[in-house]
Parts: sequence; C-alpha cells; structure tokens
Amino acid sequence: MLVPQPHIAPFFPPHRTLMGPGPSDVYPSVLAAGAKPTLGHLDPLFVGMMDEVKTLLQYAFQTKNEMTLAVSAPGSAGMEACFVNLVEPGEKVIVCRNGVFGERMRQNVERIGAVAVLVDNEWGKPVDVSAVEAALQAHPDAKFLAFVHAETSTGARSDAKTLCALAKKSGLLTIVDAVTSLGGIELRVDEWGIDAIYSGSQKCLSCVPGLSPLSFSPAAVEKIKARKTPVQSWFLDQTLVMAYWGNASGAKRSYHHTAPVNALYALHEALRLLAIEGLENAWARHAAMHELLRDGLEKLGIEFVVDAEYRLPQLNAVHIPAGVDDAAVRSRLLADYNIEIGAGLGALAGKAWRIGLMGYAARRENIALLLNALSEVLGQ
Amino acid sequence: MLVPQPHIAPFFPPHRTLMGPGPSDVYPSVLAAGAKPTLGHLDPLFVGMMDEVKTLLQYAFQTKNEMTLAVSAPGSAGMEACFVNLVEPGEKVIVCRNGVFGERMRQNVERIGAVAVLVDNEWGKPVDVSAVEAALQAHPDAKFLAFVHAETSTGARSDAKTLCALAKKSGLLTIVDAVTSLGGIELRVDEWGIDAIYSGSQKCLSCVPGLSPLSFSPAAVEKIKARKTPVQSWFLDQTLVMAYWGNASGAKRSYHHTAPVNALYALHEALRLLAIEGLENAWARHAAMHELLRDGLEKLGIEFVVDAEYRLPQLNAVHIPAGVDDAAVRSRLLADYNIEIGAGLGALAGKAWRIGLMGYAARRENIALLLNALSEVLGQ
Repeated sequence: MLVPQPHIAPFFPPHRTLMGPGPSDVYPSVLAAGAKPTLGHLDPLFVGMMDEVKTLLQYAFQTKNEMTLAVSAPGSAGMEACFVNLVEPGEKVIVCRNGVFGERMRQNVERIGAVAVLVDNEWGKPVDVSAVEAALQAHPDAKFLAFVHAETSTGARSDAKTLCALAKKSGLLTIVDAVTSLGGIELRVDEWGIDAIYSGSQKCLSCVPGLSPLSFSPAAVEKIKARKTPVQSWFLDQTLVMAYWGNASGAKRSYHHTAPVNALYALHEALRLLAIEGLENAWARHAAMHELLRDGLEKLGIEFVVDAEYRLPQLNAVHIPAGVDDAAVRSRLLADYNIEIGAGLGALAGKAWRIGLMGYAARRENIALLLNALSEVLGQ
Repeated sequence: MLVPQPHIAPFFPPHRTLMGPGPSDVYPSVLAAGAKPTLGHLDPLFVGMMDEVKTLLQYAFQTKNEMTLAVSAPGSAGMEACFVNLVEPGEKVIVCRNGVFGERMRQNVERIGAVAVLVDNEWGKPVDVSAVEAALQAHPDAKFLAFVHAETSTGARSDAKTLCALAKKSGLLTIVDAVTSLGGIELRVDEWGIDAIYSGSQKCLSCVPGLSPLSFSPAAVEKIKARKTPVQSWFLDQTLVMAYWGNASGAKRSYHHTAPVNALYALHEALRLLAIEGLENAWARHAAMHELLRDGLEKLGIEFVVDAEYRLPQLNAVHIPAGVDDAAVRSRLLADYNIEIGAGLGALAGKAWRIGLMGYAARRENIALLLNALSEVLGQ
C-alpha cells in the first residue's frame, strides 16, 4: 500500500466544563440519546421522531411555520440556507453589522451576486434602530433586512422585535440570526414577524454541535416559490429538503440526503428538555445565572464589554484586565481546571474573553467553579 | 405562550439490522465514541484528534493529499464542496450519468452556471469507457471529468482507474463520487490520479451519518487557487475550511464554523477500526460476504440487476421477484425481523431491492438472518 496503516489509539476526551461561546456543556441524556442505535433515514419510526423534532422546534421558536426543521449541518450552513433560498442575484439586502456574524451575512449576500447595504455599528453595541430606519428610507428597493439577534462575537443583544416591525412596515422580509439566542433569551418568531430564522444546536440548546434549526414564514415560502432562478445550492435547497422533512398532511417522505440520524436523536432530547423546563423558565434561568456571574466578576474587578441594557446573559464578553496574559489564563483554566472560556473574536481578539452561560452550562455550580478558578489564576 | 409546551416522550429506537443502501450498521464502539464528552472545537486535544482523523482518512483514501478532511455535513454536501470549489461558471464538465448520483452531479454543475456534457449509460451498467473517450474528443475544452465510482442507486461499479487515466491524458481534472466505495472496494486516490473525491460516513465506514470525507489533489488545490470568481458557498469554501483543519506545518487553527465534535469522535473511531482491520482485508471481507449473500439469494430464485463483473459487493441490487409486493416485503422484514433493506431508487423504484453489505453490516450473521427472514417472508 502506498500509504501504510497508521496506528492510532482510541480517543478519550476529558470532561471539560464548557463556558465559552459554544459548544456548551451537553446534557448527559443528550449525549446518551446520540448513541442510541442508528435507524435508516426513511424508517417510519425515525420519520415519526422527525415530526416530533419539528413540533419541538416550533415550540422553541414560538412559531406555527410549517417550514420548520433542522438543517443537517452547523449554524453557518443554516445562515447560508436562509440567504441562498430567499435572496436572488441582484436583490438588495440591508445587512446590520455589529460583529463577526453580521459580516458573515454580508459575505453570504455577495456570494449570491446580491447587493448588501451595510448598516455598521460599533462592536459591542446593539444594532442601531435609527440607522436601520434611515437605510430603509434610503433604499426603498431593498427586499430584506438581515441582522443578528444575539451577536456571539460581542455579547450584544439587538432589539429584534422593533427591527422586524420596522422592516414589516416597509414591506421587507426579515432574516434573523438566532444562533446564540434560541433558548437563552426571549424570542417569539411569529409575534415579532420574523420571516427566516436559523440557530445552532450547540449553544443554549446544549445539544451536540452540527445541526442548525431553521424556520421560514409563509411569506418567506412564497418568496421562494416565486424565484426566477434556481437556488444555487443543491444541498441547501429547502424546497427539496422539505420533500424529505414532509409537511402537516403527513405526505410520504422522499429521499434528499441522508439525515444525520444520531445527531437528530440528540436534538430531539435537547429540545424535549427545553420543553420540560419551559421556555420562559429557561430564559429566566439564563438571566439569573448571568446576574450571579456578573456579581462575581465585578468582585474580581472585571468589566463588561456591553452596556447592561443590551447584555446577553448567555454570552458574557468581558475586558481582559490590564497586564493579564490572555492566552496564559485561558490555558491554565483549561489545563488545571478543565474549564473552557472563549477568546475574543475579530475586533475583540486579545482584548476580551467570552464567558458562556448557555443551556446546561448555565448552572450555579459552573459559576462557582469558574469564579474560584479565575480568582486563583489571576492571583487574587 | 403562542405555542404551548408539547409533551413528548424520550425516543427509544429499536435495534435494526441495517442492510439497505446506508446508513449501515454502526460499530458499537463508534456509537460509544460519539457520546464522549463534547470538547470545544478549538480545544488543543480536539485539534489533535482532527489531525489523527486526517491521517486516518489519508490511509482510507490511499492519498498523501494535504487537503484531506471531513466536510461537516452529509455526502451530498461533500459532492457540492467538490463542484463549487473547483468548477467556475462557464466551465465545461463531462458528467457520467448511470444512476441517481450522476444526475445529481449534473444538477450541481448547472447550479454553478457551468456546462454539463452528459455521457449517459443504462442504469445498472458501469460508465462506458469508450463513450467517455468520445466525449473527451468531442469536447477538447472540457476541464473536468466527473463520475460515480460505486452507484448506490444501481449497485454498479465503474472503472475509476481507467477513467482517470483517460482524463489525465486529455489534461482534465477528475471529480469522483466514492460515497459507497470508500472502505468497501479497491480505491487508490493517488495511484489512480483522482483529483477530487468525496465520500460519506454512513456507508462502508459504518459511522453515524452526517459527515463527508473529502480529498483534493495538489492539482485541484492549484485550480482553486487560480479561481477568478469567489466560491459561491461560504460554508463549503475549502480555502476557509482549511484554515480550520490546518496543514502539515501545524499552523494555528482559525475558526470557520463549529465542527460537529461528537460526530468527528465517531468518525475517528470508525476509521481507526478500518485501519486496524486493514484496507485490503476490508475489501476482501466485503467481496467474501457478497459471495455468500449472492449464493443464498440465487437459491431463493432472486436475480441481480448488475452483471457479475461490475457488481458492487457492498450494494446488491436485485430484481423483485414477479408477483411479489415490494412494500409489503420490506415492511414485514422491518416489523417482524428488524431488518432494513433498501427500496429501488429513481428508474429502479418498485422494481428492485437494494441489499447493503456495508462495513460492520458485512457479517456472516447478518446474511444468515436476512436469507432466512426473506425466505420466510416470501413463503419459500
């Protein structure tokens, strides 16, 4: 053989406490669910479970949208699914950019051959509603407003309800990134009038990474049906995908791609746990745990990047104290305490830490552990 | 709440014996690996494991290609990754179509705005080498030859070695679908001169579904670097992905998307088992198990769709005996024996069954069980 047999030992990961920007700590029963025996992707029992995943996602998103499912790939594929299905070449999209993921939206728009009108905001600030209003007035031909509800790169929450109302008033469809918000803070897809939304399995749902919950409103579906050009991605073409995920009438499933069966078992379980806890209770828990963490961090003299009003409870971006070695602290937390916190991303690289309190990670014992470890590592 | 809490019980799938076109039976230690504690996607221990996955994939593909990795999505995304990275709008691709997956290649080419020159073959036959030769002569401006090594929809094996040699002679790059072939039949990427190849985790690797092993030759990488237009997919842009998967120099990983950490644990274990068995032994086992199954099916009077010379040992397409109710037989196998076999796809829908002997499913006990069950269900 040209390439000889490699000799590689089994991999045994340690048990980390995941308090970065995601993946978050996965619920034990979610990990166990993912290891259940694999079924065929057309097995009637599996298809029944997919129906339940859809029902659970409709609850998590607070939507009655028929087109609600999980994309068989991570959140960045969910983002791309929204843009490539809805936006056609030449169309104009107002893209709000206040962090890494708004910038990624721009790249998605431009790779379609569509036009991104940028509304730029300082990192760490929410999307500026009045700047969006101005953009809407300046671009009456724009068809979409796209923004990030919870910017994972900065920890800032934008006012999705107000932004969507503005877009509606001007007749635009809305595309919303809820990767870090779903399950962690208030999010009401139908009441707020969100037309296309995507999230990730590995944030406040505390599921294994690799899936992207997604939902399209009836108006978004109409837009897709009225397309003049084919969707540029075959894999992400949601009209094909829906023939597999099926619809309310219980129509027969047709094969599109092989679903990630075991990851969907895990998502089913994670969404089930969210439904058992109750969405509002989950939101309240994230808020309460954030306050505990905030109080502890402030005692250590650590300051937040984002103003209190716009802070995400589930993603706490804090300034690295002066004179502290960013990488050394994170390495010690990881090596000595098995705690992962996140580095800064983009404009905040080297300047901030991102401390996640997402889903199963948003627990009192995690906060106690982190505060104590951080205090020791910082020598306080 | 607009959408009230659903009450949904935990999902407990039965243990099926998966002898369809994939997913195949997953090795128990692979399921267990996928349930190990989740690490962050930038955790040094996880990054080290990814390096091992790359080494193991290079062995499985028999390639020294640096750009060898697993796409974070199913095989159809791996297919799309090959086409959207390599092929630019207006370029000509000779696409061999002898089943569902050749047709899907055409759709990928056309959604790029490139030109597909079709070489059509009867379903159940291998790609016709002389027809490809004629197409190469008729289209001297073609830049790529694309074909399916092992057609999952028909069970036919094409002569990848000869087809690649022809393409090389005419200066074309080759794009090869190895979704069903990797690990099941002889496949030598470097020796045969394959430039871009993709596979799936859920076939002869017997891993959970959801990942797509992929490899690009240095010539393919050069082609990507010389692109005049951006890759239309952000998620599948392999130049961005490689900044995360890294390279031989051990350069620092940069974030692209959140890797499906637990699925990659599973792939690591599945590839490890393949390396322990040895590629040539795995190929020989698939061949031997196929002969056992063939002998048993022939005793039941069941005939193969594909001529013996071109049959895939891992995917046995057989004619449904006259007067037999297709769906009823498959339903009884599933309900009474927990055995899944595959229905016909595309032109073979309702006319053929597809019996998989892939990876861990290619075992003597599975064949004994299936032959006995089939005999009972057919009333013989």
